[in-house]
Amino acid sequence: MPLSGLRVIDLTRVLSGPFCTMLLGDLGADVVKIEPPEGDSVRRQGAVRDGLSWYFAAFNRNKRALRLDLKRPEACDVLARLIAGADVLVENFRPGVLARLGFDADRLRALHPSLVVCSINGFGGTGPYRDRPAFDFIAQALSGFMSMNGMADGPPLRSGLPVSDLIAGLYAALAIAAAAPRARASGQGERIEVSLTNAMASFLSYAAANYLATGTAPARGGNDHPIAAPYGVFPTRDGELALAIPDDAFFARLAAALGAPALARDPLYATNAARVANRARINAIVGGRLAGETTAHWVTLLNAAGVPCGPVATVAEALSDPQLMAQEMVLDVPHPGHGTVRMLGFPMKLERHPCRVRRPAPEPGEHAEEILAEAGYTPDERTALRAAGVL
Amino acid sequence: MPLSGLRVIDLTRVLSGPFCTMLLGDLGADVVKIEPPEGDSVRRQGAVRDGLSWYFAAFNRNKRALRLDLKRPEACDVLARLIAGADVLVENFRPGVLARLGFDADRLRALHPSLVVCSINGFGGTGPYRDRPAFDFIAQALSGFMSMNGMADGPPLRSGLPVSDLIAGLYAALAIAAAAPRARASGQGERIEVSLTNAMASFLSYAAANYLATGTAPARGGNDHPIAAPYGVFPTRDGELALAIPDDAFFARLAAALGAPALARDPLYATNAARVANRARINAIVGGRLAGETTAHWVTLLNAAGVPCGPVATVAEALSDPQLMAQEMVLDVPHPGHGTVRMLGFPMKLERHPCRVRRPAPEPGEHAEEILAEAGYTPDERTALRAAGVL
Repeated sequence: MPLSGLRVIDLTRVLSGPFCTMLLGDLGADVVKIEPPEGDSVRRQGAVRDGLSWYFAAFNRNKRALRLDLKRPEACDVLARLIAGADVLVENFRPGVLARLGFDADRLRALHPSLVVCSINGFGGTGPYRDRPAFDFIAQALSGFMSMNGMADGPPLRSGLPVSDLIAGLYAALAIAAAAPRARASGQGERIEVSLTNAMASFLSYAAANYLATGTAPARGGNDHPIAAPYGVFPTRDGELALAIPDDAFFARLAAALGAPALARDPLYATNAARVANRARINAIVGGRLAGETTAHWVTLLNAAGVPCGPVATVAEALSDPQLMAQEMVLDVPHPGHGTVRMLGFPMKLERHPCRVRRPAPEPGEHAEEILAEAGYTPDERTALRAAGVL
Repeated sequence: MPLSGLRVIDLTRVLSGPFCTMLLGDLGADVVKIEPPEGDSVRRQGAVRDGLSWYFAAFNRNKRALRLDLKRPEACDVLARLIAGADVLVENFRPGVLARLGFDADRLRALHPSLVVCSINGFGGTGPYRDRPAFDFIAQALSGFMSMNGMADGPPLRSGLPVSDLIAGLYAALAIAAAAPRARASGQGERIEVSLTNAMASFLSYAAANYLATGTAPARGGNDHPIAAPYGVFPTRDGELALAIPDDAFFARLAAALGAPALARDPLYATNAARVANRARINAIVGGRLAGETTAHWVTLLNAAGVPCGPVATVAEALSDPQLMAQEMVLDVPHPGHGTVRMLGFPMKLERHPCRVRRPAPEPGEHAEEILAEAGYTPDERTALRAAGVL
């Protein structure tokens, strides 16, 4: 697999860091998840079935687990030995915590000169907010992302999903995958940092570009698009249809498919600028037609005509949609002792070396023996560590 | 830099693909952007200053550009030669278009056995929707993402930013960075595919886990959190405050900071479950206190107390925020002939080999001469290609 042979020591917990290391594991890395004695708190979050949080199971597939109480010096000695034998260390403590555990930059360099160290945090390791407590919601708010999310006449809204955690995790995985081969080849390590807030800010995309160019940011507008119409969610006979008309060629196709080709020649609607200026009118005309038939009718007819549209799926509908099923976006993963866990599949499809679930999410401390043995601990030493309550 | 020496042939346009190749370029890859004669349509989108779209400039930094009219066989010959000298090919045509241009899997393998080919599309290259026209909005709708975004009593909302394009671009960059070193070392290429819809579905995260475990997905709830309270946006004396209280320890800190420590011992509010059950009450109590002082007052006081909170920034506020400035999340990039362009900075911070703008976004066809020369075209051949209108 692409990342086979990459050994990752994973000190992360909850979401952003574990998502990052899950991605590395999905691509073949050997991820050693180190948990405090009480375990990653996600083990106790979300719906539990047969004694297992399916949320934890999903985000911790393809990892091995070791418990270490890093408040104890013997545990820090174990961690130091594991780091010396790894390629990558990932952590999502607040800035400074890793150093206070005894692993500042100098120590890490001494332990392993070519180590790639990746820190994920809320605001970055420098700057006036570095020590603030961080949270997905706060990053969504502070980054400006929320200001673009919501109805024009409603409040700024967070995304209902923890996008800043997930996007930061993706950036961290990308930076690690990019940096690790060179670090190994050159013998020179790298320190990587990704913050939730920076990650979200990077998603301001065209809103940032337009603001920086003009001093004015696009307004929040619900499902409307600031520079395209018709564009939004329209009621149908039995549900709703998401419709996106990015330009005049697509509008001509839509008009023809709706049986109203003359709309594409009407000066009120012929150009995108005209349609944006007459958004309420064209939405009313298009909406009136769409309301007369079912969502399935329009999805079939409009897609055949090359018009981008689709249903607005619930989570239940999405996770049983024929396309997502064909794309294997829901997996059944046997979890010994916990039955079969269903979880999201792999958005990265690699033909020769596909992502796969090589191992289910680990039990707490499940792989302590083998991980310590690989690190050179003798059976007696392992027994002693266990007896001392370090593991 | 981490990806120095990686040559990427970039056939992508608009957003998802160009974002992917921008990330690779930011990390040091040599990206050759191939545009049709009329250019990437983003050159004509967004605010234009001094003859340059700042949206285009932001998403196409660190690339070189070549114009090729791939409807002409001579242009396809040039592309074939470029592919033979590259490591990676990225495209975001609809499935099948690249093959119809003469570059099916067999041809690509024959041209370059260890090439990494990455396709970004709407729904994936297999399955019933593979040929549908795709669009960020449709992927947000179909994936279930929109069903989790919006107010409880309002419609499902797309994110105001093109998250499916951006997330798919991130996944594609990660898969490429992971696959490329092994492909080069082994001589065996890889084919990668990332769809906008799969990328968005992968972000269903805990909503997917809970749905798959229980048959019930969390309800859309605006800024409320399904399993935590108080959590949301609260008015202050002069604005709004985003506040996130994930557990009882944080609530105790909040209660103390608000001067009402007894709340943390009140059975109506002492536990997270109790606070969720009494969400309206605790929101009213907390909101009543927060409304009495300014946002800045609370941001300072509550963060000092370890309570996650922050302002709800507009795009303008975010892009002048002291923390984002300290993190260099806005860059000034000299663009010869177009003044200085301001754009978003790098969310991946690498200490030894930082991302940087090695070159501004290219003019159309700017690097034709040097790219063709590197591919072995003689000056006479280049002149002939130019005279024939291929470039």
